[in-house]
Amino acid sequence: MNLPAFDDVTTIGCVGVGTIGGGWVAHFLARGYRVKAWDPSPDAEEKLRTLIDMAWPALTELGLAEGADPHAVTVHSDLAEALDGVGFVQESAPEDLTLKRELFARIEAALAPGVVVGSSTSGYSMTEMATELNDPGRFVVGHPFNPPYLIPLVEVVGGEGSDADAVTWASGWYEHIGKSVITMEREVPGFIANRLQEAMWREALHMIENGEATVEQIDLSITEGPGLRWPLQGPMLTFHLAGGPGGMAHMLDHFGPSLKSPWTRLGAPELTGELRDRVVAGIDEEAQGRSVADLIAQRDRSIIAIRRIIDQIRADEGNGGAGDEGEGPGGPPHA
Amino acid sequence: MNLPAFDDVTTIGCVGVGTIGGGWVAHFLARGYRVKAWDPSPDAEEKLRTLIDMAWPALTELGLAEGADPHAVTVHSDLAEALDGVGFVQESAPEDLTLKRELFARIEAALAPGVVVGSSTSGYSMTEMATELNDPGRFVVGHPFNPPYLIPLVEVVGGEGSDADAVTWASGWYEHIGKSVITMEREVPGFIANRLQEAMWREALHMIENGEATVEQIDLSITEGPGLRWPLQGPMLTFHLAGGPGGMAHMLDHFGPSLKSPWTRLGAPELTGELRDRVVAGIDEEAQGRSVADLIAQRDRSIIAIRRIIDQIRADEGNGGAGDEGEGPGGPPHA
Repeated sequence: MNLPAFDDVTTIGCVGVGTIGGGWVAHFLARGYRVKAWDPSPDAEEKLRTLIDMAWPALTELGLAEGADPHAVTVHSDLAEALDGVGFVQESAPEDLTLKRELFARIEAALAPGVVVGSSTSGYSMTEMATELNDPGRFVVGHPFNPPYLIPLVEVVGGEGSDADAVTWASGWYEHIGKSVITMEREVPGFIANRLQEAMWREALHMIENGEATVEQIDLSITEGPGLRWPLQGPMLTFHLAGGPGGMAHMLDHFGPSLKSPWTRLGAPELTGELRDRVVAGIDEEAQGRSVADLIAQRDRSIIAIRRIIDQIRADEGNGGAGDEGEGPGGPPHA
Repeated sequence: MNLPAFDDVTTIGCVGVGTIGGGWVAHFLARGYRVKAWDPSPDAEEKLRTLIDMAWPALTELGLAEGADPHAVTVHSDLAEALDGVGFVQESAPEDLTLKRELFARIEAALAPGVVVGSSTSGYSMTEMATELNDPGRFVVGHPFNPPYLIPLVEVVGGEGSDADAVTWASGWYEHIGKSVITMEREVPGFIANRLQEAMWREALHMIENGEATVEQIDLSITEGPGLRWPLQGPMLTFHLAGGPGGMAHMLDHFGPSLKSPWTRLGAPELTGELRDRVVAGIDEEAQGRSVADLIAQRDRSIIAIRRIIDQIRADEGNGGAGDEGEGPGGPPHA
């Protein structure tokens, strides 16, 4: 497969520019690319320009690429015109399998060879979506998080017909444009982050249904608790630190049995020796020689800084708006 | 029940001063209280003083109460001596039901009337732990998160024998000393935050076991993705924002059916009209009139600031330590 060099890509095709697709447009513009957008909605262009205007101050604060221009986007009513001359396509059409299948065939017919297509889908696999394509090789999933211009994560995975080279190219490309990439070995419904989010969300719904917690208590339990740890250290490292100096190995060896306690509606897997070893080895790899004490020092520094930010944002809100930098009462609902 | 005024409490009894109990001691000292600690481990005092020394710079940065003194703690080998004259007791003994039951009886025998006892337990209910008490009225759960001197959340819940007044007093007391309190209406194994964390943790273990994700991918999927949203807005508000201008109601009405998709091993509850209405009403209450647009503006501001902090911490690490404030490459494992 003859794929372009990253530096040769200057113009991006964005197919579907609602909340997610429009967020991608904002990201590409901030990174200095030209964007050609296509969306059949009559008010797509107006909504897109509003979204870009709203996002631009944030993107400016995060740092724009040289030459980044919020106006470097054209909106086309003709798909072939929109895809003419682009070096990459991000597809963010509505989550409708029939629609995606038909749209992919139209993209294939109009798009120059060697141009990779990344799909923002959160609900379908590329294998499911690629059924109408003559050659699905260059079609991969590049699943972002909302808003795509602020949340770095992109989950990349190919379908059965995707070329391994196209998957590798897409992962490198998303890294090239400033995203944090997870390349998955195989298709898993929901990918990774949404499966984890969904498990928590479903447990929350069960608790609300049973009167065990209110909506607000669910949110407070995260924002005032474990949520403060997660921007720096994910759930696995969190448990590694909960194990004390012995880390994850100690945690699994001593608290493994309590996994079977009836704490959530989600059944626990059998903690086999193999699973235990795989988790411990994974943590070792991730920690890269950093001791539990080092990780704790980092965590504490991060929590302090994050708490200050959140307090400031709530104080500003209490004082009547994000533009007000004065110190004030934090006020409800989180004080 | 004759309970003290918060301002009359000047000395705290801390029973058990390992990682959690020691973290409580650090918090109480930072808030300007005197602490009398009891712990049967021979090296308890040494470890406690090391923990306080390590926590103090962070506590200083967060802001100390007037007169806060890291040395205002005495460690006693005699429980009755430790509890003499204290206005509140925080119990953080090991998670062993027999031990807790016996210890509670000893605390009851030694403690002046009207002094409330909060237990740090994460694994037991007060009803289970209070079986050896003559009068369990003043014993409640006050469950913190690690480290208790940085994570604000405390989950408060009474047992069957706890006085409602003692539960109310404990909730007010923890707020008084700067914690964020969730007062639960009834005992739920795992309380709230740990149930949510556990659901995610179990889903992660399933994914690792099945080769669907590595340990590091699990963590990256949170730290680079939804974890950036959770210090400000919990999982329910996150879904409220995912619903667009229509918010949670739109989300549940349009995406409710996909709850049944096989995205996690955790079964979803039936989305009855009643559950739907309860969730929507809960979000309305939590949002307190803030529009989805307002909430999005807050979220974006928070994510930008948090990303800057995390980038700085990782850059400092790449440059050789938390003390180094220079700009440098973020480097692995999160770059």
